[in-house]
Amino acid sequence: MYCITPISTVNDSAIWHKINNKTKPIGALGTLETLAAQLAAVLGHQHIKLMPQAMVFAADHGLARAGVSIAPSEVTQQMVHNFVAGGAAINVFCRQMQIDLEVIDCGMLSPLDDSLGVINQRLGAGTEAINATEAMSLATLEQGFEFANQRVEYHRQQGINLLLLGEMGIGNTSSASALMAALLDIDSDLCVGAGTGIDEQTLIRKRQLVADAVVLHQDKRGDTKAILAALGGFEIVQMTAIMLAAAQANMLVIIDGFIASAAALAAVKLNPHVKDYLIFAHTSHEQGHQLMLANLAAKPLLDLGLRLGEGSGAVLAYPLVEAAANFYNQMASFEDAGVNTVV
Amino acid sequence: MYCITPISTVNDSAIWHKINNKTKPIGALGTLETLAAQLAAVLGHQHIKLMPQAMVFAADHGLARAGVSIAPSEVTQQMVHNFVAGGAAINVFCRQMQIDLEVIDCGMLSPLDDSLGVINQRLGAGTEAINATEAMSLATLEQGFEFANQRVEYHRQQGINLLLLGEMGIGNTSSASALMAALLDIDSDLCVGAGTGIDEQTLIRKRQLVADAVVLHQDKRGDTKAILAALGGFEIVQMTAIMLAAAQANMLVIIDGFIASAAALAAVKLNPHVKDYLIFAHTSHEQGHQLMLANLAAKPLLDLGLRLGEGSGAVLAYPLVEAAANFYNQMASFEDAGVNTVV
Repeated sequence: MYCITPISTVNDSAIWHKINNKTKPIGALGTLETLAAQLAAVLGHQHIKLMPQAMVFAADHGLARAGVSIAPSEVTQQMVHNFVAGGAAINVFCRQMQIDLEVIDCGMLSPLDDSLGVINQRLGAGTEAINATEAMSLATLEQGFEFANQRVEYHRQQGINLLLLGEMGIGNTSSASALMAALLDIDSDLCVGAGTGIDEQTLIRKRQLVADAVVLHQDKRGDTKAILAALGGFEIVQMTAIMLAAAQANMLVIIDGFIASAAALAAVKLNPHVKDYLIFAHTSHEQGHQLMLANLAAKPLLDLGLRLGEGSGAVLAYPLVEAAANFYNQMASFEDAGVNTVV
Repeated sequence: MYCITPISTVNDSAIWHKINNKTKPIGALGTLETLAAQLAAVLGHQHIKLMPQAMVFAADHGLARAGVSIAPSEVTQQMVHNFVAGGAAINVFCRQMQIDLEVIDCGMLSPLDDSLGVINQRLGAGTEAINATEAMSLATLEQGFEFANQRVEYHRQQGINLLLLGEMGIGNTSSASALMAALLDIDSDLCVGAGTGIDEQTLIRKRQLVADAVVLHQDKRGDTKAILAALGGFEIVQMTAIMLAAAQANMLVIIDGFIASAAALAAVKLNPHVKDYLIFAHTSHEQGHQLMLANLAAKPLLDLGLRLGEGSGAVLAYPLVEAAANFYNQMASFEDAGVNTVV
């Protein structure tokens, strides 16, 4: 369904020649060098021009009614109002990095007034509870993919080439944990953590509910789309599709925390080549994230103990991505600077 | 000699009340929250205004003649010319972060033409070889402290409140390793690494030369200034003094990599309160840096495998420091945003 080209290696020697001839010891910029090589291979090896767009996907989760979070589902929409008003962490960080932010309602409990400027890609009024039935039908999932494809096409036409993905959805670490367990076929207890900070009793309940959901839908094992429809969320499904569509359109994607990484896991299962186009922003505080990242062979840029979501980690990592592009574009070569190449 | 006040805790409850009432779960911004608290305690708890200045300290080392680096001492000055021309990594990153950069000649092999705009704080034409004698006299060290004090006072008068420190000096990881071994009284082999990338044979020679230097000056154990004069470099001595003078002037300092951290170790030995004013930018690729950071009880912001110096890691960490200030200043509180405080 998606035609994703593995990143071309045809310019690799030109790219590494350029990096290795910058006025620095070979390899001295560490992770920024491999990042620059990835940017150059996808976006152009002669000059890297970043055109970023931050996207926050909001949705509600049926399982939240069982009490798996520190907050009720109403807080999803309250926080979306906060995004619109510019008062949330993601707003502050987007302003600092001069990145435009859009908020997408993928299916909160109730719709918003159009005047707020939130993009309407609603798939329903919250998912079904995943411990009782499928979160959504396969037809709904396909609608989510279609929304995502259209949104990527819109941004592609605007010249955007780098998407920063985050989410807001009370209860969505539960969905992400269940997806992780089902997609990796591992014990769900390894995948469940304290989310944004629940107490021990809630954690025990969350573990049980996630385990129940995984068992309920174990007949879908091996069918990624069926797993995604059964255990996912409207925001997770759309993030998965955004990654696939972005990779198809030769755009890069910065992945935020645990939930965006679960969406990435699903995307990679659907098409392994998508991995080439992903940049992992950070290792979050959430239990299970390290294991998930290890499964994705991802080496995130930051490790700050974040557990906020909203795309905050993706935007915080952006200056490092920009720094990789800038040193690639701007640093003098040994020849330019008249410095002995032994540096 | 330096009068450094431990950071006041008088505003701690106001600071943490403000942080904890931002529209996010308690602690969800991880390391950025403790960083914001440090900024607020030093620079003002009602509003944090950052006024940064990057400083690169350049000097040459007598030990470099023995071949402990991938490059000859001439490259120190070549790289300073590169800084002046704007072609080095530190220039690229300072431009990106919009931070002014100044370069200070602390004692390269030969002086530069004044027209280049490099600040002249020369303590000599390179240090003596530390495996043969003291790197510098105590009087020279005191001159370095005096230069540094004057420079901090100059910046204080300009309203600067955050210094980002880095260095350039062929051979200076050897000096930093010797200092680390002597200041921590540990086996110097634990402190010596590959620097910017020497081969195995050079590494063996470097280990021996550093061990010899540490043994030669072991009579100075316990006297930090004597150790610093015996094993330090002109740039290391001035960075140590900059940290002390900055802390005394209620300014914060972002510490770059292994060499700046060695200067910080000396500063903390001279006055432990200086630690409150330091922000550690990154864990570098250099062997020994992790151990040094552990001894300083430092939790650096980044871990990108950098081993470039120049202050590059300090400037790369700056957006995170800015993000800490910005969320503290700008994020809405629960009351402001009408969000349930349970988030």
